Amino acid sequence: MAKGLLIVLSGPSGVGKGTVGNALRKRLPELTYSVSATTRQPRQGEENGVNYFFKTREQFLDMIEKDELLEYAEYVGNYYGTPRDFVERTIEQGNDIFLEIEVQGALKVREKFPEGIFIFLLPPSLDELKDRIRGRGTETQATIDHRMSVAVDEMNLMQHYDYAVVNDEIDLACKRIESIIIAEHCKIR
Amino acid sequence: MAKGLLIVLSGPSGVGKGTVGNALRKRLPELTYSVSATTRQPRQGEENGVNYFFKTREQFLDMIEKDELLEYAEYVGNYYGTPRDFVERTIEQGNDIFLEIEVQGALKVREKFPEGIFIFLLPPSLDELKDRIRGRGTETQATIDHRMSVAVDEMNLMQHYDYAVVNDEIDLACKRIESIIIAEHCKIR
Repeated sequence: MAKGLLIVLSGPSGVGKGTVGNALRKRLPELTYSVSATTRQPRQGEENGVNYFFKTREQFLDMIEKDELLEYAEYVGNYYGTPRDFVERTIEQGNDIFLEIEVQGALKVREKFPEGIFIFLLPPSLDELKDRIRGRGTETQATIDHRMSVAVDEMNLMQHYDYAVVNDEIDLACKRIESIIIAEHCKIR
Repeated sequence: MAKGLLIVLSGPSGVGKGTVGNALRKRLPELTYSVSATTRQPRQGEENGVNYFFKTREQFLDMIEKDELLEYAEYVGNYYGTPRDFVERTIEQGNDIFLEIEVQGALKVREKFPEGIFIFLLPPSLDELKDRIRGRGTETQATIDHRMSVAVDEMNLMQHYDYAVVNDEIDLACKRIESIIIAEHCKIR
């Protein structure tokens, strides 16, 4: 049986990975979506194994120790990571799995799964990205400048990806991602 | 300006290249379709420059001489070929061009355009292909056997292509080809 594909969606912060990822879940319900492990507390309505695998700090450190995570990172005092087991089992069963993660994490996944399909989500323009980063809330100019400089650095990592998809309209971005998945299944390897 | 893509659809005789090509014209009218040159007589309703570029034998031999054809072949006493000029002008203008040709011709085009996207149209099964070859008319068993053996030889050339698309349903085959074109435009080169 042919293995499934690992499809990784990434891109600079503020580009709309989460929004596109959620729209894709509705458009392609037959795709399996990777569930992250985290040490943060469950929020109202979040289910273990659905939204996240909720772990204690000790459990998470143990997963790192045993190389059970494809990548992980710490944000605001909490760990987030991608369990290797779920990804491997899904593709071994011949099903595709979809991963939506940060740029640095995606490059770590690429080291372990060079045969994965790595898609970089692009803003229509840098000005547009600035607007989106600014539009998030009431951050200071210094915070916005810092986030913008991080985003520009992240943009430079695009060259390590297989595909670039412009997030001009969510529907269009989803159609492009769906097309990439269909095309990859037709590829002669 | 980015160049357009050369998209070549080929596959064994009897697989339904023409049917899929025609369905694609309706689905993707914005795509430019290559027009072949031929020495055969125009049929009722056929227009020069639309269905074919109609040429005399002398004109055609002159085009061969001047390397103005990407590929050509002789069938039942008539020449058929792909004018290079039209293909090159279209992609230089940033537009995609679609070519639907025989397996051998496609491989000749690949020599001149290695960066083209080569799609191999597959029958759902060899039995299905046999049925289609048989279903064409009232040929003798020997003719059917010969066509079938040619088709099997042609199938072995699939490895030189980039993509394989199964022609199980015309709509599905068209959707896969459309997806390949969209995905190729997203590819980071």
